[in-house]
Amino acid sequence: MEVVGRDAVLDDCAVLPVGDRFLVASTDMLHAGTDFPEGMTDWQVGWMSVAVTLSDIAAMGADPADILLAVGLDDPSRLRPILEGAKACCETYGARFAGGDLDSHRELTLVSSGIGFTQRPVRRAGSEVGDVIGIVGVPGRAQAALEGHTHYLQYLLTPCPRVEEGRVLAAAGASSMMDVSDGLVSSLFDMKEANSCGYEVFSAQIPTVQGIPPDAGLDLALRGGGDFGLLFTCRPEVLPLPIPDLYVIGRVIGEPVVKLDGRPVKILGYQHHWD
Amino acid sequence: MEVVGRDAVLDDCAVLPVGDRFLVASTDMLHAGTDFPEGMTDWQVGWMSVAVTLSDIAAMGADPADILLAVGLDDPSRLRPILEGAKACCETYGARFAGGDLDSHRELTLVSSGIGFTQRPVRRAGSEVGDVIGIVGVPGRAQAALEGHTHYLQYLLTPCPRVEEGRVLAAAGASSMMDVSDGLVSSLFDMKEANSCGYEVFSAQIPTVQGIPPDAGLDLALRGGGDFGLLFTCRPEVLPLPIPDLYVIGRVIGEPVVKLDGRPVKILGYQHHWD
Repeated sequence: MEVVGRDAVLDDCAVLPVGDRFLVASTDMLHAGTDFPEGMTDWQVGWMSVAVTLSDIAAMGADPADILLAVGLDDPSRLRPILEGAKACCETYGARFAGGDLDSHRELTLVSSGIGFTQRPVRRAGSEVGDVIGIVGVPGRAQAALEGHTHYLQYLLTPCPRVEEGRVLAAAGASSMMDVSDGLVSSLFDMKEANSCGYEVFSAQIPTVQGIPPDAGLDLALRGGGDFGLLFTCRPEVLPLPIPDLYVIGRVIGEPVVKLDGRPVKILGYQHHWD
Repeated sequence: MEVVGRDAVLDDCAVLPVGDRFLVASTDMLHAGTDFPEGMTDWQVGWMSVAVTLSDIAAMGADPADILLAVGLDDPSRLRPILEGAKACCETYGARFAGGDLDSHRELTLVSSGIGFTQRPVRRAGSEVGDVIGIVGVPGRAQAALEGHTHYLQYLLTPCPRVEEGRVLAAAGASSMMDVSDGLVSSLFDMKEANSCGYEVFSAQIPTVQGIPPDAGLDLALRGGGDFGLLFTCRPEVLPLPIPDLYVIGRVIGEPVVKLDGRPVKILGYQHHWD
């Protein structure tokens, strides 16, 4: 809404020039009722709460610096494993766990906030007609785990933010980027929202989860969230890049629509928005 | 606890060197069950949620830059007035309201995170024996309002972070500083925790809320929270400073205790701590 301003809500992070660099900053709220799958340990809760913010920083192509964690605890005994998981995630990705705020709460609620730095922030806006559309990571693995494919539980319970991959993509000249934590189709619509062009993807090029029938796998890939992959665009000549888990899935088109195999896609489901 | 590290939890903000300046960062969780007094409007809820973080930034002597707000909403209609109050508080103190995260939650939960910059961060550690102890703001006014003195409701409902005063104190050479959002005595103990010296204050020098019997006023001043004042120490020759609401209330002593009128004070009540 106009209270915040359109620019402030389009990207994964807020961006602030600092000297000859850019600072990026993001915050994410998670709480027990909706965000922590059954069976998730408190260590994993802590890991996840940091990973969501690191994923936002990665999606700007930035190096994470400091992470703060606000913890609303329903049970004091949960604090230590949560902090240990949070700290482990910070250390894995080169961030400093810099403290936070501690409160009691009826429902376990975690809000991580983080800052990072980059010479060249990659925003959601910036796609150009003729760019290729790429993703990092096979989409749908977290959703597959949620739907009972326990082989993929690690993707659901300890998701890996793509910090190094985001950095490589930014340095190589990606024209736009975001993380796909809310699912591929949803993310393509978010990209369209931030740009004046459209996005066409091809089901034959979208990698799908192994060990699941192809149609079900494609469905998981298109709508499944929680994977912390990256969605990006770049000039075709930017590729290949030294990122093992990178897939080209389509191209940027002039018509401002999202297309799958030549047909416009409609978006389903409720989404939270500032406006 | 050792998971976070002692340095990370002693100050109002995390501190990070950035070029020739220091970045400070803080996060604060507020939620309906404990933090928003009855009768507080949603606009005031938004204001307050930003003010707590600005107060932390002020307590480091820093200029606020960006504020992010994570909003867990129990009712979507509350969003607009909350964001308007949050934005008004940002604009009043020269911060940019840079977006955030939006979620639904059973209990209205707001977490603001903010960054600021300063040439010289003032930490809690740094007090030296012989320094004077000063406060900015009359302590106890928010608590007075909570206890029915409605004349002081503005201090409870739209508290004013002391951004300009913090900046002046830092530039003038304050040796240590923190905000007194949890009450004066509690804050003196927090200062002692961060230093190897002690703090002696004198009841005759502590300003009290007008229109309340002196004993009750002193009690409010000592234990009342929510005022967003500043507690600081400095060499005596640093004063006077052009801060109208500044009071010298005591001195830094060698013995590591908190004293009121010559007698050691004990701290009462439960406090949230990382360790």
